[in-house]
Amino acid sequence: MFKAIVSAETLTSALDSVSVLVDECKIHLEEEGLEIRAVDPANVGMVDLSLEAAAFESYEADGGVIGVDLSRLEDIAGMAESGQLIQFELDEETRKLHIQIDGLEYTLALIDPDSIRQEPDIPDLDLPAEVVLEGKDLNRSVKAADMVSDHIALGVDESEEFFYVNAEGDTDDVHLELTRDDLIDLQVGPARSLFSLDYLKDMNKAIPSDTEVTLALGEEFPIKMFFGYGDGNGQVTYMLAPRIQSD
Amino acid sequence: MFKAIVSAETLTSALDSVSVLVDECKIHLEEEGLEIRAVDPANVGMVDLSLEAAAFESYEADGGVIGVDLSRLEDIAGMAESGQLIQFELDEETRKLHIQIDGLEYTLALIDPDSIRQEPDIPDLDLPAEVVLEGKDLNRSVKAADMVSDHIALGVDESEEFFYVNAEGDTDDVHLELTRDDLIDLQVGPARSLFSLDYLKDMNKAIPSDTEVTLALGEEFPIKMFFGYGDGNGQVTYMLAPRIQSD
Amino acid sequence: MFKAIVSAETLTSALDSVSVLVDECKIHLEEEGLEIRAVDPANVGMVDLSLEAAAFESYEADGGVIGVDLSRLEDIAGMAESGQLIQFELDEETRKLHIQIDGLEYTLALIDPDSIRQEPDIPDLDLPAEVVLEGKDLNRSVKAADMVSDHIALGVDESEEFFYVNAEGDTDDVHLELTRDDLIDLQVGPARSLFSLDYLKDMNKAIPSDTEVTLALGEEFPIKMFFGYGDGNGQVTYMLAPRIQSD
Repeated sequence: MFKAIVSAETLTSALDSVSVLVDECKIHLEEEGLEIRAVDPANVGMVDLSLEAAAFESYEADGGVIGVDLSRLEDIAGMAESGQLIQFELDEETRKLHIQIDGLEYTLALIDPDSIRQEPDIPDLDLPAEVVLEGKDLNRSVKAADMVSDHIALGVDESEEFFYVNAEGDTDDVHLELTRDDLIDLQVGPARSLFSLDYLKDMNKAIPSDTEVTLALGEEFPIKMFFGYGDGNGQVTYMLAPRIQSD
Repeated sequence: MFKAIVSAETLTSALDSVSVLVDECKIHLEEEGLEIRAVDPANVGMVDLSLEAAAFESYEADGGVIGVDLSRLEDIAGMAESGQLIQFELDEETRKLHIQIDGLEYTLALIDPDSIRQEPDIPDLDLPAEVVLEGKDLNRSVKAADMVSDHIALGVDESEEFFYVNAEGDTDDVHLELTRDDLIDLQVGPARSLFSLDYLKDMNKAIPSDTEVTLALGEEFPIKMFFGYGDGNGQVTYMLAPRIQSD
Repeated sequence: MFKAIVSAETLTSALDSVSVLVDECKIHLEEEGLEIRAVDPANVGMVDLSLEAAAFESYEADGGVIGVDLSRLEDIAGMAESGQLIQFELDEETRKLHIQIDGLEYTLALIDPDSIRQEPDIPDLDLPAEVVLEGKDLNRSVKAADMVSDHIALGVDESEEFFYVNAEGDTDDVHLELTRDDLIDLQVGPARSLFSLDYLKDMNKAIPSDTEVTLALGEEFPIKMFFGYGDGNGQVTYMLAPRIQSD
């Protein structure tokens, strides 16, 4: 059983966060809200998303799992005007999802969840450094690095106490330092890892520029990035595996 | 003889309504105003457009016919800034149209009207149902249907008294109902026909979202769509042949 | 030695004026300001640009020459937000240019100036006619001509005292006259020359629509176009060779 009503904005934020990594996903329709976990085909980037029942205008579910085509669902959400509500009702028998937006009914064929790539176990890492910054500063870092390279180093300078971004291209280099004054919060620890810029660019696309993002980092360890959405009733965690330093 | 002055906005509305169906057309320069009729190469969609002399700042004509390249004329109209007037004068001898926009003179070579596809006879159908709605609601219907299919069914439910849109895709379906409350007017009658979405999308492009559009419908009959432009001094009628139901 | 701070807007205006003609250029770092001269690969269009020290927040240089990739520099300038300052410092030893924008450091590898096409000698022509007009009127002329042809004639009517633009296509023609009333200034003299529209379109892209542009013209002679930027502390001169009239 699944019946829910949600604003187009909240739904779109949730879908966009997952669709930057995968085309299809399983959605767990838990009693307390939606849960999505997914990993990209190369097993490099993962996403763990939740959207609590409180984020919905109304919400009823009893623990089922559905498989969806994300771009299809995003197109449907795009039919809603700003402020409009989207209504969902699952037909268990036909395995179709009925979606209503102000008189418009869309009947979406679901995907067999067993045909979708298995969900990842997101490891519970103890990462020593934590950086809290605005989405727009992460965006600026990614954009600058992208001018010169296809990978990016993120790290923390423990003695000088700043977060830094490094990108080394064939001829040009980019370096950015954000001190405590530029950041929302900084927890110093040994941290420096190299990442694929392609993945970070995709994840960055889903992070609003005015959102507070937390980065958890270690030395040649995966990065975890958390941020909230849906008025604090939704949470996205990205995890990205590091690239091997080639020096 | 043809001499006229018209606002760029009115001219552009007229041209756009025709150019969604054909690249070239004949324009009848009648004493009372302009008349254009055209049919697309596949004989599926027709347009019948008039622009009364009252829509012009000044207008003089005596019944000639000219052939024009529509995209060429649209480009010229696009040179005018908002609010600017466009001045036309036909040189009967050279068969060129002199066009002036604030000091800019464009000399347009006309096309021999005999080389343009013959104008259609637009049949005078007696269609039993009539739906009057806002352009934006038609736009929404077309956009929603386009997500799942390449054809669209339009009909009227006689007992429940609503206008509906149906589109059935390989996996997903779209259904939209507009009741008397959602419509500007509804005249109930037996009506349900299937149309090619490609044509309806093209026609829809030329219909402003804040315009009142009248749809006349029957059972497996062509649809007629009328709307006004140019402060009520212009009229466009589209006619679209139905597709054969394949069920 | 070169150290300078300049607004992103001023730098971008300067770079855009040159990059419409060439991909790489030499920049002369004179004591009194920057100087750039460049000619396109076909030797048809030239640019001579200066940016005085007064256009900078701070400026120190002692006469060196550097070679730069313009699109690379434009990308870097694009990282600055409106109103932000860009800081330059040349490392003579490594031949790299250090660029800073609000905490972001970009290290740009310079190009060996000897590997860049030689700078043109811009001839000191005595052109008899001079037309001063707004950038948007030049833009309109170029756009109109582009609808019908790939070349454009610019001239001055000495007896009627107006500046004109002519473009003759295979079927259609465009003619525009700007009188003293439409122009900022006009110095009448014998002038009519034909130019490649491709070049004029490129140069026009770099001329802001609200800028005063001076055109100096002769009979089958090159055109010179001057305009200022950077609050009057920068000057751009374009020179474009005429095409041979083929009639």
